Amino acid sequence: MILTVTLNTALDITYRVRSLRPHASHRVSEVAERPGGKGVNVGRVLAALGHEVTVTGFAGGPTGEVLRAGLAEGPWPVADALVPVSGATRRTIAVVDDLTGDTTQLNEPGPQISPAEWGAFLDRYEELLPGASAVALCGSLPPGVPVGAYANLVRTARAAGVPVLLDTSGEPLRRGVAARPDIIKPNADELAELTGSHEPLRATQDARRRGAHAVVASLGADGLLAVTPEGRWRAAPPTRLHGNPTGAGDSAVAGLLSGLLDRLPWPDRLTRAAALSAATVRAPAAGEFDLAAYEKLLARVSVTAA
Amino acid sequence: MILTVTLNTALDITYRVRSLRPHASHRVSEVAERPGGKGVNVGRVLAALGHEVTVTGFAGGPTGEVLRAGLAEGPWPVADALVPVSGATRRTIAVVDDLTGDTTQLNEPGPQISPAEWGAFLDRYEELLPGASAVALCGSLPPGVPVGAYANLVRTARAAGVPVLLDTSGEPLRRGVAARPDIIKPNADELAELTGSHEPLRATQDARRRGAHAVVASLGADGLLAVTPEGRWRAAPPTRLHGNPTGAGDSAVAGLLSGLLDRLPWPDRLTRAAALSAATVRAPAAGEFDLAAYEKLLARVSVTAA
Repeated sequence: MILTVTLNTALDITYRVRSLRPHASHRVSEVAERPGGKGVNVGRVLAALGHEVTVTGFAGGPTGEVLRAGLAEGPWPVADALVPVSGATRRTIAVVDDLTGDTTQLNEPGPQISPAEWGAFLDRYEELLPGASAVALCGSLPPGVPVGAYANLVRTARAAGVPVLLDTSGEPLRRGVAARPDIIKPNADELAELTGSHEPLRATQDARRRGAHAVVASLGADGLLAVTPEGRWRAAPPTRLHGNPTGAGDSAVAGLLSGLLDRLPWPDRLTRAAALSAATVRAPAAGEFDLAAYEKLLARVSVTAA
Repeated sequence: MILTVTLNTALDITYRVRSLRPHASHRVSEVAERPGGKGVNVGRVLAALGHEVTVTGFAGGPTGEVLRAGLAEGPWPVADALVPVSGATRRTIAVVDDLTGDTTQLNEPGPQISPAEWGAFLDRYEELLPGASAVALCGSLPPGVPVGAYANLVRTARAAGVPVLLDTSGEPLRRGVAARPDIIKPNADELAELTGSHEPLRATQDARRRGAHAVVASLGADGLLAVTPEGRWRAAPPTRLHGNPTGAGDSAVAGLLSGLLDRLPWPDRLTRAAALSAATVRAPAAGEFDLAAYEKLLARVSVTAA
């Protein structure tokens, strides 16, 4: 079983409007709703690839109930090990313009987590780890969770001998890296914030020196840049892709974990991650991926030494 | 008991953001949630004025449950006679800019109402009417409700001898007016759409000729313009008001109904409606009203012959 941790789960809501104009009133023509938060997205992609997945983190309130019902539905259900909290799971609203296809994002902050709820999560995490072949720690921290939370969870996973991937930003990433996770997957902004450098190769190498065994930077249309104990590579799809990049980074995380568990060499893991990421950009719904596009893209991703 | 009908109830969500920019990502700093839809807002203001209120219409899904729980809470609860439906109650999102105070509105369309659900509502409405001293029919129609719905509800109320106020727009207003409601309260846009005239006094008189016994047009900062069997008046607060106009029209409706039941002469009804409306613009939260401001404004509204 692969365990994904999403401390700030979300009910992801997508609205279609003709064209978003500040200070105007808009009729929403179409509403879609699905379970979200980075670790939930990663779990859904892993399940679609055939892996057994358990999702943990927090869920609460009416939005939490809708989220939990959604985890069990759909073509690729995941096991629900979320810890109930008294606050309500946040919503995210993606407003998609019909005219341009561009998206405006509104993210609620998430519920306040009490010390007792954080303690209940730590207990649940320790119960789940022995059954996990790998763990992904994903996304932002809701209010009330200590900023060193991911550092703590990385150390616990390492002590249990479970490979751990960390995908977060800011101070939780800075502290988490120092706890020596197996992989981190920052995007360009997160990498620059962590290292102070806007030069991707230099920043990726610096991030590795800070404690991560491997660093895979997701650089948008430029693909992935990996610095690992086995070598350094760039992986990119053949052409620039048009579509919705929401969830592309989460699909890359799923590809990296899937490749790790299948004991693929790094270049093949990167091929899988880059193809999944590109297939997510091409899918019609944000955060979904197009399986046929993925299978075609696998042969077309180029991996080169960096 | 005053009965308010809201066929397209809503869970009204208010977000604070620093400044809304299309195609950017925003952290929401503050989230507020409350039962909404025009008739629900009217009911809450009537309850605050000391009237006994029953709210009917439709509610369904997880958002409907949150809405119904909210009706019973707060300082001025209203009785819940909503009819359950299988679809989910819509959300409306008001995004308030911290920098400018301006609001961007996103309105979901509402659930599909089946013929059986519409039939169940008609039964409920006929059960409730004999206990009602007045009825307010408010807001848009959800998908599936016949466009002549309000005309039907106006005729049923008149047959039961219950005074009826209609506050809607477009074709449902056009048909509803022809069924001879006691009062309609269009805003400037609704009045222009109904009559084809942008000249307020001419349009208000024309609307009355189409079947309404009295027409009270809400003209934003210009206050109210009333054409009634007793005479024609303008009512306005002393100065232009700054604040959030959301719900100001609903507060005017509450003032008109309250004044009708208290058997006030028209000029005093308009004073009450204009003062409530202005106190709503001044309140910090959209759709609430400031009771102290209302009491001060009562003495400062000017009513003049039109």
